Amino acid sequence: MGRGRLEGFSDGVFAVAITLLALNLFVRGPGHGSLSHQLTHAWPSWLAYAISFFTIGVIWVNHHALFHGIERVDRVLVYINLVVLFFVVAIPFATGTMATYLQSGGQDAKLATAMYCGVIEAMGLASAALLLWAQKKGYMRVTALPADRRRATIRFSAGSGAYIAAIGVAFVSPVAAVAMSGLIAAYYIFEQTPRSEQVEA
Amino acid sequence: MGRGRLEGFSDGVFAVAITLLALNLFVRGPGHGSLSHQLTHAWPSWLAYAISFFTIGVIWVNHHALFHGIERVDRVLVYINLVVLFFVVAIPFATGTMATYLQSGGQDAKLATAMYCGVIEAMGLASAALLLWAQKKGYMRVTALPADRRRATIRFSAGSGAYIAAIGVAFVSPVAAVAMSGLIAAYYIFEQTPRSEQVEA
Amino acid sequence: MGRGRLEGFSDGVFAVAITLLALNLFVRGPGHGSLSHQLTHAWPSWLAYAISFFTIGVIWVNHHALFHGIERVDRVLVYINLVVLFFVVAIPFATGTMATYLQSGGQDAKLATAMYCGVIEAMGLASAALLLWAQKKGYMRVTALPADRRRATIRFSAGSGAYIAAIGVAFVSPVAAVAMSGLIAAYYIFEQTPRSEQVEA
Amino acid sequence: MGRGRLEGFSDGVFAVAITLLALNLFVRGPGHGSLSHQLTHAWPSWLAYAISFFTIGVIWVNHHALFHGIERVDRVLVYINLVVLFFVVAIPFATGTMATYLQSGGQDAKLATAMYCGVIEAMGLASAALLLWAQKKGYMRVTALPADRRRATIRFSAGSGAYIAAIGVAFVSPVAAVAMSGLIAAYYIFEQTPRSEQVEA
Repeated sequence: MGRGRLEGFSDGVFAVAITLLALNLFVRGPGHGSLSHQLTHAWPSWLAYAISFFTIGVIWVNHHALFHGIERVDRVLVYINLVVLFFVVAIPFATGTMATYLQSGGQDAKLATAMYCGVIEAMGLASAALLLWAQKKGYMRVTALPADRRRATIRFSAGSGAYIAAIGVAFVSPVAAVAMSGLIAAYYIFEQTPRSEQVEA
Repeated sequence: MGRGRLEGFSDGVFAVAITLLALNLFVRGPGHGSLSHQLTHAWPSWLAYAISFFTIGVIWVNHHALFHGIERVDRVLVYINLVVLFFVVAIPFATGTMATYLQSGGQDAKLATAMYCGVIEAMGLASAALLLWAQKKGYMRVTALPADRRRATIRFSAGSGAYIAAIGVAFVSPVAAVAMSGLIAAYYIFEQTPRSEQVEA
Repeated sequence: MGRGRLEGFSDGVFAVAITLLALNLFVRGPGHGSLSHQLTHAWPSWLAYAISFFTIGVIWVNHHALFHGIERVDRVLVYINLVVLFFVVAIPFATGTMATYLQSGGQDAKLATAMYCGVIEAMGLASAALLLWAQKKGYMRVTALPADRRRATIRFSAGSGAYIAAIGVAFVSPVAAVAMSGLIAAYYIFEQTPRSEQVEA
Repeated sequence: MGRGRLEGFSDGVFAVAITLLALNLFVRGPGHGSLSHQLTHAWPSWLAYAISFFTIGVIWVNHHALFHGIERVDRVLVYINLVVLFFVVAIPFATGTMATYLQSGGQDAKLATAMYCGVIEAMGLASAALLLWAQKKGYMRVTALPADRRRATIRFSAGSGAYIAAIGVAFVSPVAAVAMSGLIAAYYIFEQTPRSEQVEA
């Protein structure tokens, strides 16, 4: 099992999943009120689309960085990676369901939002399992410095804890949980980017 | 015909097919009962999604391993591979149909489940044809030891026989046939993984 | 513009288009007659799916062979290739429309079938333009022997003429035109495969 | 973060987005008037499909050329690229919405067409940000001649200005704005292609 084909297949799944998100974007067409009203009314769809798009983007970047450091691949790793993709593929569904119920509100909006945060949390836990397995088996190319490793653990735990908190918040205020999801994605984007480290091309 | 582009195209088809599975995940939205009721009622969809996802995953891993051992590619092999992909692409349809009819039950649930197992069996037979053609033509890189080859034949025959049995079981108890499909996928995942052999990255 | 990324993008489009064909496979679900009746009644969908799948497969194999012989790529070639993909991407739509109207029959079935054959003919003409441009500009790696070149021209003209004939036949008997489409795809598959020439892997 | 995997992922998104465009092609089927009437009536769909297909094609070619000149990739660049893809993925939705409302006309057709032009403009601005960042950071492989750089700036500004104008025109005449979009895509295709420069394969 070459690392190249595993990355190629994973990239394909990420690319299709991130593009299928856009199937959640739609308007009902003529006869369902003015277009501007429809576009305004469907704001949870646009917001959910944007958050999910950049969340999948962050996952992809992290997936990339993780595999960049992996030197060897075994079947366990292949199947843990499949579990990661299992939840990635579920994100468009979870996004669409959340967007639909945010428009109607009520108890269902809470459950739909909690399910959305839960799917992302599950994806994050599977990614952590991927990293832990690769570390345990000594498949990582560069033995990171203890300080870097500690920092990575803190960052992962923070993200994981934040999504667990978001699941809880969803049952009180779905909109607050959605805002948290957006902030977590933004945190991962901006926390890492200022360093702007140059990497081999 | 380079092996690389054949693998790239196949990986693309696998990636799209595995992601399209998620189109079978949907809820009817507000006005069709509570979301928790809808999610509970649609359990066959979640189960079928999970089984099909890991079944396609297993197929992809095996496809990968098979092509890893192939040194030469001819047009016959390309077209046999196309037959494999033909059935892979039909899996999301077969999954969706099975999930729909499992919810309504009756005679149709039996036929839908048998059709699902039949599509996977057909895909397995086409994969076997791929392997046999490559062996017959001497395209395999490593001439496996007789013991390994015998073991591979036993493993394939077992899987093939199990799906034929599942087709029969479907006409008695669709749920039992679904359970068999899940167990076969799990068998292939866990039977191979404990060895955890390291492979080139 | 590297040849590699052009092939990668084209393969992606082929992979998505061939997989989207399966979206034409569906049954109406419970309450629309027995499943076996629905499956039987929808035979044009299964037939059209199979023919289109292997037609796109043949196109992909030929596209592959063509680019394998191309050494240089210019922008004109990139845009002609885009025209080829333009018609490839329209095949799932043309397939679905033909399948739908073959079930209802009448004048519309004739038009839908003619449109289907027309899309494939247009794709073939664009592929021919791709080859001619590459030859005219001297981008082909191997200057084929005159006999081989003549043979390729005959094969292309035969295929092109056959689809033009199928467009005409569609207005008399759509089913006959569908059969012709299937036979043309089968011809391209079997005419080339017996030689089984070995190619670099 | 290797440039290769970034290009592979981007190509995947482009390939899926360009193929999903075809989901906007559909006819209502039997019982909704003759097929020829439906095909004629849906002309905005065919036109919008063609314009969007070649617009995404032009974007892909430019994306390709841009990354061909980039030697180093940092995280900022990865995320700016994600913003480009964010708008690429929205094009099928914007295309479908525009096509739907062009058929019904009225105020909504103006808004839908302006939204379509706006999505493409936003994609263009993100692409410009990508280029500017790579230039500012010194990631570009070849330091282009000042004359070439000036020419590229003029070409980009012209395209950007044309889409801004098209947004304005859309509120007066949607059909004129659609025609402008088609002409802009054609301009980019034909303006560059006559030179037919040969590039490494």
